[in-house]
Amino acid sequence: MYSFKNDYSEGCHPRILEALTRTNLDQTVGYGCDGHCEHAAALIRQAIACPDAQIHFISGGTQTNLLAVSACLRPYQGVISAAAGHIAGHESGAIEATGHKVLTIPAPEGKLTPDLIRQVCDAHQEEYCPQPGMVYLSDATELGTVYSKAELSAISACCRDLGLFLFLDGARVAQAMAVSDLTLADIAALTDAFSIGGTKNGALLGEALVLVHPSLHPHFRTLLKQRGGMLAKGRILGIQFEVLFQDGLYDELGRQAVERADRLQSGLKALGYPMYVESPTNQIFVILTQEQLARFQELCLFEVQEVLADGRTAIRLCTSWATPVEAVDGLLDALSSR
Amino acid sequence: MYSFKNDYSEGCHPRILEALTRTNLDQTVGYGCDGHCEHAAALIRQAIACPDAQIHFISGGTQTNLLAVSACLRPYQGVISAAAGHIAGHESGAIEATGHKVLTIPAPEGKLTPDLIRQVCDAHQEEYCPQPGMVYLSDATELGTVYSKAELSAISACCRDLGLFLFLDGARVAQAMAVSDLTLADIAALTDAFSIGGTKNGALLGEALVLVHPSLHPHFRTLLKQRGGMLAKGRILGIQFEVLFQDGLYDELGRQAVERADRLQSGLKALGYPMYVESPTNQIFVILTQEQLARFQELCLFEVQEVLADGRTAIRLCTSWATPVEAVDGLLDALSSR
Amino acid sequence: MYSFKNDYSEGCHPRILEALTRTNLDQTVGYGCDGHCEHAAALIRQAIACPDAQIHFISGGTQTNLLAVSACLRPYQGVISAAAGHIAGHESGAIEATGHKVLTIPAPEGKLTPDLIRQVCDAHQEEYCPQPGMVYLSDATELGTVYSKAELSAISACCRDLGLFLFLDGARVAQAMAVSDLTLADIAALTDAFSIGGTKNGALLGEALVLVHPSLHPHFRTLLKQRGGMLAKGRILGIQFEVLFQDGLYDELGRQAVERADRLQSGLKALGYPMYVESPTNQIFVILTQEQLARFQELCLFEVQEVLADGRTAIRLCTSWATPVEAVDGLLDALSSR
Amino acid sequence: MYSFKNDYSEGCHPRILEALTRTNLDQTVGYGCDGHCEHAAALIRQAIACPDAQIHFISGGTQTNLLAVSACLRPYQGVISAAAGHIAGHESGAIEATGHKVLTIPAPEGKLTPDLIRQVCDAHQEEYCPQPGMVYLSDATELGTVYSKAELSAISACCRDLGLFLFLDGARVAQAMAVSDLTLADIAALTDAFSIGGTKNGALLGEALVLVHPSLHPHFRTLLKQRGGMLAKGRILGIQFEVLFQDGLYDELGRQAVERADRLQSGLKALGYPMYVESPTNQIFVILTQEQLARFQELCLFEVQEVLADGRTAIRLCTSWATPVEAVDGLLDALSSR
Repeated sequence: MYSFKNDYSEGCHPRILEALTRTNLDQTVGYGCDGHCEHAAALIRQAIACPDAQIHFISGGTQTNLLAVSACLRPYQGVISAAAGHIAGHESGAIEATGHKVLTIPAPEGKLTPDLIRQVCDAHQEEYCPQPGMVYLSDATELGTVYSKAELSAISACCRDLGLFLFLDGARVAQAMAVSDLTLADIAALTDAFSIGGTKNGALLGEALVLVHPSLHPHFRTLLKQRGGMLAKGRILGIQFEVLFQDGLYDELGRQAVERADRLQSGLKALGYPMYVESPTNQIFVILTQEQLARFQELCLFEVQEVLADGRTAIRLCTSWATPVEAVDGLLDALSSR
Repeated sequence: MYSFKNDYSEGCHPRILEALTRTNLDQTVGYGCDGHCEHAAALIRQAIACPDAQIHFISGGTQTNLLAVSACLRPYQGVISAAAGHIAGHESGAIEATGHKVLTIPAPEGKLTPDLIRQVCDAHQEEYCPQPGMVYLSDATELGTVYSKAELSAISACCRDLGLFLFLDGARVAQAMAVSDLTLADIAALTDAFSIGGTKNGALLGEALVLVHPSLHPHFRTLLKQRGGMLAKGRILGIQFEVLFQDGLYDELGRQAVERADRLQSGLKALGYPMYVESPTNQIFVILTQEQLARFQELCLFEVQEVLADGRTAIRLCTSWATPVEAVDGLLDALSSR
Repeated sequence: MYSFKNDYSEGCHPRILEALTRTNLDQTVGYGCDGHCEHAAALIRQAIACPDAQIHFISGGTQTNLLAVSACLRPYQGVISAAAGHIAGHESGAIEATGHKVLTIPAPEGKLTPDLIRQVCDAHQEEYCPQPGMVYLSDATELGTVYSKAELSAISACCRDLGLFLFLDGARVAQAMAVSDLTLADIAALTDAFSIGGTKNGALLGEALVLVHPSLHPHFRTLLKQRGGMLAKGRILGIQFEVLFQDGLYDELGRQAVERADRLQSGLKALGYPMYVESPTNQIFVILTQEQLARFQELCLFEVQEVLADGRTAIRLCTSWATPVEAVDGLLDALSSR
Repeated sequence: MYSFKNDYSEGCHPRILEALTRTNLDQTVGYGCDGHCEHAAALIRQAIACPDAQIHFISGGTQTNLLAVSACLRPYQGVISAAAGHIAGHESGAIEATGHKVLTIPAPEGKLTPDLIRQVCDAHQEEYCPQPGMVYLSDATELGTVYSKAELSAISACCRDLGLFLFLDGARVAQAMAVSDLTLADIAALTDAFSIGGTKNGALLGEALVLVHPSLHPHFRTLLKQRGGMLAKGRILGIQFEVLFQDGLYDELGRQAVERADRLQSGLKALGYPMYVESPTNQIFVILTQEQLARFQELCLFEVQEVLADGRTAIRLCTSWATPVEAVDGLLDALSSR
């Protein structure tokens, strides 16, 4: 039974495994100071057209987010996020554990806007409120939606106007770029820091954190070590990002994940299933009756998103670079044969 | 030029790479709830003869230490450590960043004793002092020394008497067990929590944290997620520990590292080099004159431990399971040919 | 122009000032270990009929709340609060700064119920959520409403059922008791910890924190010192609570504050002003048109609570033990003469 | 039996009590925004000749220190202190509870020097160490010693050279100024932040924190509120500092405390008692034999500083503005009559 539960059900892309195997017994220095990490950072700096950015390779996504927040904020500040943001609901209070409040606001389709950001700021003017210090957004969002270049530009201008750092969580940025007009170079130009997800796009583990704003640079590696995000064999992250950023593999895997999702979503729509949200990326959200739900449970694995007031259930189906066309078509065939 | 800089210069043991390759495209659930993690935990529970222990797989050593401390302590408590302890000097203030003070005391050869522990407690009786809540020790220590079963038993009794949790950092426990009478089962019987190091003994990354004391069990996974130590593809940790704990590989790699170090240390002693500390494990500490230091710098890579008052330099040479006999003999030959 | 801005516009009750003056040059030990603190604690233990409770005198309300939360929670836990709760919106992120998330839910009239508490718990079942560890409620609430004995009993039973500590913020508990059937003894029987506000009921400063549950007792004074809530001349808190808990002064001042508010609220209603919320205690909330608002601004000082969607403004008028009847009548007269 | 246990055994100076009494029923706004606080701040700005400094009134000394450290440091930084520094040993881990390590070094007579500061910095060069971000020193120190203007100037130059903030804990700065060539204006010119102690020099409670460096100014009041150091009736701090900084009372009380100590120390020396440290201020440290210790215990209250290796005991005798000459002479008479 195929699992559409998430986009990290498999290991890594075979080319990554080959690279890990090929270099396995080479000796390198530790803690991400090796040649692979340096080379991977250089490739990323080139891809984002930002020669002065710092690039750090970090073990996971929650770690990356809490480090970005720690680096950006002073103790009296909080971070603005959509209510559906990953840091608000899916990280076990990681941000609060670093001492900062997540300042949430409900956001249609999980997407922040300048207007929403200003609303949060207006609500935190008093000195008895934590002061907004940065904006967190994810692209693709937790609902699969994406920001256009125009939208991110507007948010960027708003943040600069308000004196807020802007951080973009790019755990699924490859999938976002596959369908939007935003490039990594745009993101680097418009944000102060962002992450480039490895785990959900072909790597065994690892995110690249890009620190664009120079005020975030000093001693970041000490912070990284302090919070436990630095690997002794840091090279295994460098090697993976080297492969991902050579010959366009990173973009290709993002596109592949989205193509599978698109095929699945089109098929489901053709079969008459309503969508919970219109997602153009690799997470799709279908609304099912009780009966349909039971049928899906026989056919594949997935996550429940929400039980709706009318008794129906919204579920999430997730594809990745590793999802075979056959798995998609097999599910659609089984559903249509009913 | 061979690097004796540390015991994580190479990738992983070939059998681990084979297992990662063999399972690469299998689908599993995420976050360490997969069958490999379960199997690895079962193997470890068997190896430590502690069927009720919780086993968690964590991305790195600093992460493991800060999680253990967070789980053991209340906010008004501190952790007792030898002044040379890893948490005291090598983790960028990771423990303080979780809100706790490291209560240090100089300890001969880096080893705590009941007497030293009592001294720290006596010095923190007043309510204006952080209250000692646990003891941290590492085995092998940062100076390569090890605890005997009798020594650990005495410390364990002391901690129980004083109401302190006892945590053993086993980043190099395989190397310690290769030369001491302590077994993992002994450690499980004598401590409240301990780690079993993967990174320095054949794994790409990862430590197993064993929570023996039941009061440490509730919701530990939420803490693990909160501090960023949980991997989405948790299985890559499970797979590695499965391999390490099958067919005695974990012990074998520890022995192998120590054999190389022993060969190196004996050779150096035969050549007349004095030792900075008598270490039976895989870190050895040699005292060099200025001239000898220059010679070593031509021949291999290593870490400087301390510049002594008399101008000589103590260096650390580290071996691992991956160190070839040829590298050891090559260094010794080059030194003796002089 | 009289200020109805808050209930801490004046200094302290004259009897407190007399006691401070009378004892001023006596020598005592520091840090709240003096005879006045002991006596005040004994008086409180008697008033709450809880001979085993620990009583601590703390400099302020935010300090008291953050200490109670720190004492109750483990690092992976959060605190449930009404969205209007003081810790949620008026303490500059004090709870988050101790590492814990405030888990809020909108609550009618600012009052939690077992049903609301269960809803928060249900929404935090997953291990990627901070785990609810305690419930925070204030009585009187931030909207002036109060809990009945039956209501608090139901919440208490719910918390015990769910394994949650229950903490009641009693910054205005005197004012609440003046109009509800709850006594301090009831509160002690139904909660695990609660505070007895001094600042808003006759003292210059200071809250008494009552720790009922024995698991909160160990080393609380170390925590108190650590967070900066312990005064060197702790006796000035003890002396004030001695006076407040002798001859029924504490209850009398609460009643006095409520009588003034009642007189004001009745008068305003008689003049046709609608209320924003029906508050029986010393904070009253009136809805004003633009024109009325301007008139009020000429006549007295107050806080704006909310600008309503229809353009009208809800304001808060606050009375205290120190509010003269003349100030109330003066305002009413001026309003009616218009 | 007179208590020389500390310099906060009594209440406040009578002129302060008069001012509190005189203003008691005036209405003011809360949280330190009232006219008394503004006036007191203006008086202090004048006294320190630093018109742009921010002045904040804070409930206590530990609170003041933890706030200063929070304001100065980034999460990857620690604070340098003499091993005898108040933050290192007497604040229950308050600094660590804000996430920062105290980087200590033994300092003769409790006084830091540029050389000691550089030693700490040199020992924390590696990225696996918390980075020194500020220097904490107290004047008078915990051993009663003081810094001269030349000494503080040298430290100041060193800190500016190394990019470290310099914070001076002035809990006993009045007593220090009574015997050194340093003025508050010098301190303002040489440090980035410092406190002016009220509790130990005539106030019921309260310290004034002076933020000289403009980068420490933004949103400090939010931080103050967050950590629980802001009083609702903030005016009681303002009123006290108004009195202290009018007509030279602050300096006068410091001198008075030192005069009493001087009389006591001279008397004890004349009687042949050796000193533990040569302290020119209001804490004096006498070494006693067992027999002498027993005699002292009959005659007065004091603190034990240290039990020496030879079995003798060093004790601390503390005087304050409130110590009567009779208490000093009474003790000396009793000792000499023996």
